[in-house]
Amino acid sequence: MRAINDETVTDVALEQMAGTSDPRLKEIMAAAVRHLHAFAREVNLTPQEWLEGIRFFTAVGQQCTSYRQEFVLLSDVLGLSALVGLMNDKNGTGFHSDTSLLGPFYRENSPQFELGQSIATKARGKEIALYGCVLDSNGCGIPEASIQIWQTDEEGDYDMQKPEASEMDLRGTFHTDSEGRYYLRSVLPAGYSIPMDGPVGDLIRAQKRHGLRPSHIHYLLGAPGYRELVTALYIHGDPHIGSDTVFGVTDSLVVKVTDQDSDSPFPYLPGIRYDFTLASADKGQVSGRVGADPAQITRVAQGGGSTR
Amino acid sequence: MRAINDETVTDVALEQMAGTSDPRLKEIMAAAVRHLHAFAREVNLTPQEWLEGIRFFTAVGQQCTSYRQEFVLLSDVLGLSALVGLMNDKNGTGFHSDTSLLGPFYRENSPQFELGQSIATKARGKEIALYGCVLDSNGCGIPEASIQIWQTDEEGDYDMQKPEASEMDLRGTFHTDSEGRYYLRSVLPAGYSIPMDGPVGDLIRAQKRHGLRPSHIHYLLGAPGYRELVTALYIHGDPHIGSDTVFGVTDSLVVKVTDQDSDSPFPYLPGIRYDFTLASADKGQVSGRVGADPAQITRVAQGGGSTR
Repeated sequence: MRAINDETVTDVALEQMAGTSDPRLKEIMAAAVRHLHAFAREVNLTPQEWLEGIRFFTAVGQQCTSYRQEFVLLSDVLGLSALVGLMNDKNGTGFHSDTSLLGPFYRENSPQFELGQSIATKARGKEIALYGCVLDSNGCGIPEASIQIWQTDEEGDYDMQKPEASEMDLRGTFHTDSEGRYYLRSVLPAGYSIPMDGPVGDLIRAQKRHGLRPSHIHYLLGAPGYRELVTALYIHGDPHIGSDTVFGVTDSLVVKVTDQDSDSPFPYLPGIRYDFTLASADKGQVSGRVGADPAQITRVAQGGGSTR
Repeated sequence: MRAINDETVTDVALEQMAGTSDPRLKEIMAAAVRHLHAFAREVNLTPQEWLEGIRFFTAVGQQCTSYRQEFVLLSDVLGLSALVGLMNDKNGTGFHSDTSLLGPFYRENSPQFELGQSIATKARGKEIALYGCVLDSNGCGIPEASIQIWQTDEEGDYDMQKPEASEMDLRGTFHTDSEGRYYLRSVLPAGYSIPMDGPVGDLIRAQKRHGLRPSHIHYLLGAPGYRELVTALYIHGDPHIGSDTVFGVTDSLVVKVTDQDSDSPFPYLPGIRYDFTLASADKGQVSGRVGADPAQITRVAQGGGSTR
């Protein structure tokens, strides 16, 4: 029997996992064990601290419900979600708009709208127009591209955070016209606090972070033959644009609300014009910081991970 | 605004956490983020794989109940629990018996027994005697030392894994006599499978590991003025003594069941003699691979971590 001590235990664990049949799982788990042990050694983790960690992770898991995914939130505030998305972007080929985090508030099957309609079916606030084009990497409009959009209301809440969480508002699905144009109406979203009443909120408070995201609007775009694009537009001037709690802001995604634009389909409304560029589909690769398959994320969120 | 890309995001995250007021929390979380990001970079983690991870951790959290702590189990099978305990032992001062994992099946307030009694109040099996001394580091017996003991039955199940999980069996609390001696009866425990019906079991199967622990008996010893000792004795000859799924076996803790021992208080029974040595209490430090405060572990296990 190989003697197990604090220096050999990592290798003993790796040996016991060496028979893993899936080579990628083997690679990932071996790296996970090495980095996990290196972390514990570096900080000389004590049993009491280990216990706090067990308690924290358990609380995170038990905070997950049909309308809340606390592990996604934890990954977000640690910068892991941003990192995974940024690496995925870098590995992709073909020019496309920058991406941003999907976040935990995406929902499948949002209401279908006609171009020009408003997604604010219940929410009130300052009405704005959102418009522009969905283009291919040559700058040509993509007709019938789907645009899913979702955002907070003027109080910074998503529909899922309201008491009537099952009712959708401030989200919808549109399709571009024959020239790739989209135009719709909404209300100006407010800056957003991540949910602070769970274990991740406790962590954020202990770290003296504000827990806020700058005001933003989520987009998920797709069309046959193109890579799906998960992104968001951030409203210029928000005081937290430089200190996003989940590290999602990229310069190219910061937009101004224009008061007057004679080219706008709604010239009487303040508006945000943004042209999105989709890359051609290649090797089944997808874009998006996280959210390769948003439908999967929704299933995780809504199943709480309890169904395996 | 500092540009966030896949190379800078780690530093940006660390900067945002730099105001943490508790210096130890700051140190631990900074190391956690660095090692987590290094792991993701090393394996070039994809959004799909990240999603699988979110799903897995969520399932682990939701598997925790009043009688099950799946995060402790995950820590155990990754070798983290063993590492934390071994480092803690190394940092301690004063000679004491080797320690081993507390595991997820400790319970507070186990029944009080008189010396000589059997902890097998319901379980059947091959009766054995357990006896020896609790000594200080000079080899002198410690009177009235408390000994908590718990083990599986002949099928490899703890009481908590039975349908009537709330009823205790094969566990109890004894106190040494005036010369530091203990003696009691039990039944021979069977080798033990970790719970395989949850997400950790899925992982163990994917890694082609057997998921078994060699037959063993848990001990938690204490006396005023001495460091608490969390350990276990492993039965020599068990086929999995060299491949423990949770890396808890140390040579000095492997014991033989002696058929005849004229010194035994129960000479007609097969028996295990073991003398435990407790170190003097120093600086409030505790021994034990994990389980600095077993009562806390029980609270985590039984509250499922949902009460913060």
